[in-house]
Amino acid sequence: MRSIGIADTMFAKADMAALAIKIINESGKRLKIFRATVPGIKDLPVAAKKLVEEKKCSIVLAFGMVGREEIDEVCAHEANIGLIQAELLSNTHILKVFVHEREALGNTKKLLSILKDRTIKHTKNALDMLFAPASLTARAGTAQRQGSENEKYFKLG
Amino acid sequence: MRSIGIADTMFAKADMAALAIKIINESGKRLKIFRATVPGIKDLPVAAKKLVEEKKCSIVLAFGMVGREEIDEVCAHEANIGLIQAELLSNTHILKVFVHEREALGNTKKLLSILKDRTIKHTKNALDMLFAPASLTARAGTAQRQGSENEKYFKLG
Amino acid sequence: MRSIGIADTMFAKADMAALAIKIINESGKRLKIFRATVPGIKDLPVAAKKLVEEKKCSIVLAFGMVGREEIDEVCAHEANIGLIQAELLSNTHILKVFVHEREALGNTKKLLSILKDRTIKHTKNALDMLFAPASLTARAGTAQRQGSENEKYFKLG
Amino acid sequence: MRSIGIADTMFAKADMAALAIKIINESGKRLKIFRATVPGIKDLPVAAKKLVEEKKCSIVLAFGMVGREEIDEVCAHEANIGLIQAELLSNTHILKVFVHEREALGNTKKLLSILKDRTIKHTKNALDMLFAPASLTARAGTAQRQGSENEKYFKLG
Amino acid sequence: MRSIGIADTMFAKADMAALAIKIINESGKRLKIFRATVPGIKDLPVAAKKLVEEKKCSIVLAFGMVGREEIDEVCAHEANIGLIQAELLSNTHILKVFVHEREALGNTKKLLSILKDRTIKHTKNALDMLFAPASLTARAGTAQRQGSENEKYFKLG
Repeated sequence: MRSIGIADTMFAKADMAALAIKIINESGKRLKIFRATVPGIKDLPVAAKKLVEEKKCSIVLAFGMVGREEIDEVCAHEANIGLIQAELLSNTHILKVFVHEREALGNTKKLLSILKDRTIKHTKNALDMLFAPASLTARAGTAQRQGSENEKYFKLG
Repeated sequence: MRSIGIADTMFAKADMAALAIKIINESGKRLKIFRATVPGIKDLPVAAKKLVEEKKCSIVLAFGMVGREEIDEVCAHEANIGLIQAELLSNTHILKVFVHEREALGNTKKLLSILKDRTIKHTKNALDMLFAPASLTARAGTAQRQGSENEKYFKLG
Repeated sequence: MRSIGIADTMFAKADMAALAIKIINESGKRLKIFRATVPGIKDLPVAAKKLVEEKKCSIVLAFGMVGREEIDEVCAHEANIGLIQAELLSNTHILKVFVHEREALGNTKKLLSILKDRTIKHTKNALDMLFAPASLTARAGTAQRQGSENEKYFKLG
Repeated sequence: MRSIGIADTMFAKADMAALAIKIINESGKRLKIFRATVPGIKDLPVAAKKLVEEKKCSIVLAFGMVGREEIDEVCAHEANIGLIQAELLSNTHILKVFVHEREALGNTKKLLSILKDRTIKHTKNALDMLFAPASLTARAGTAQRQGSENEKYFKLG
Repeated sequence: MRSIGIADTMFAKADMAALAIKIINESGKRLKIFRATVPGIKDLPVAAKKLVEEKKCSIVLAFGMVGREEIDEVCAHEANIGLIQAELLSNTHILKVFVHEREALGNTKKLLSILKDRTIKHTKNALDMLFAPASLTARAGTAQRQGSENEKYFKLG
């Protein structure tokens, strides 16, 4: 049985990981779940890499929330660079599921909608990457969005 | 028979990879094609590295589209840093074929033209790098552009 | 007996490491403490990695203070990228405990409050990561803050 | 006999590599030259690393031109980070010879002057690094410039 | 007998390395000195790493000067990222001794003062890191500055 890793933070303003676990369990897929919670997003890269290397996870979902200040955006940039390095060093996909407060400043309803939509869709993406990778190619170049409605796409030639 | 890898995304607003595969097939070159589709551009680096290391691809084309927001440009920067690292860790060229929405804001015709031109020319570049590397040196310093007409160039000395 | 590493700087305007050591000692946890002091924050990444690899520390706290100028913020960015790389290369958590002067310009009282609160809470986080990792998951997504009061958080679905 | 590598691009608006090869040949030094031409500057890091590792080059000159747009400057930044990583992974110097269009906007004569001066001087630097490293120390701290006249320098103490 | 490495550039407007060597010799410490001079600051990371790995230096001082233009600041950022990577790959401290022209624009006297003070203090820091590391901890959190007077510091708790 394969394993899926979930890395998340105490800093985030909502428990995205719990929702992800619910989605995974409801999917009926046979998967062992390992979860590691860290203080903030800059702690996610090594947490995700350890889930791959020490828990043998075949894929990891890394959930984070980015505060509204400029320094928070810099932290997110550092975390993303680190998560991509973690992927390259472990040859394993780590989906970077970040929600930025700036996406919905002062609009709690919109923020919650983004949080749910992005979490659900990326969790399903992770399951598809494990169990149905061809289904991603079937949707290639179709402007899929996580956190909002898909956008309009174009036919080439 | 050598292999070529194609990594692309569901986020993009057009299926550049399908056009690239058409170009490769029409070239008559004997090449096995492996394709991996991921959610977004930050997922491309490890996808490309896995095509090299697990599928033994001799070169990879990584197709991505960059949204119009500042955060999208930051993602592209992170993806490019990761793709270059993937090249260095695998000693294999990964052509970074990105189209930015900001290149043609509100101009769908121009956007489609860039998408087609850049995809076609970079796919031909990849084929030349595999089968005719000297042909690139023959065009060195001649202001070759992908996505638009070539620019004017200068003679040195 | 496990070991905890503490890396800090001569540049900082307060001795956060001494406070951290006091917290660790008062915790009653059986832990050997190794400390390395360097000139500035850009020297922290290799200092922290050496604490892991040469002193066998199971976790490291890296304390730094960031000056008020733009160049200081760039240094902090470089240090953070390096600290995350050090974590990835050693598969060990290094908590990045940085206080920025810009957080409390011209307000010494606020600066001291941030220094103390962030140092104490991150030291406790490190102890929890070693001795009670499940306690972090119990607080996942609850907007925990180090340096100030926690923020308001939301229930998802 | 040692080897020198030359990596350059089709994107550049002048053939700096040809001028460099002329300088190397006129120097009378016994050196085998290997050249790799790639599409653009972001392809230079792995090309340079392959020249070191696969062609056993003792040093590499990497020539690139940076367009006038902000996105071009970002590409140059990514390429430079990659070239420095290539040096660290191969323990070999790769001289980063980049000319930015912004250095001489709308002034072709100045652009050509920079292109020639920088190419010639950095090619000679590479030869000195191979055959006369002490000659660089003899010029240490003397405000040497490639692309323009040297600047004024100061005596310390 | 241990060795200390010194990496510096021809680009700098003053010979900081010569002053550092004078300080080291006057210290009476038994140390072998290895020096490598390169064209500019982006060449320092691999030069420093080679001093560690090929000359077995126990510590390295990397001296550089940063020009007044924005592009120079970008180069310094790239060099610093590379120097930190060199430290992580070699598990050895490389002190990054950079002077920025922007610190003293149009004020030669101030520039010279910064150059001397930063060079002397960081050279002494390097000696202390080799021969008296506890003396750095004794000064932890005391706002030590290189290039100017120390700043005011605070007692915590």
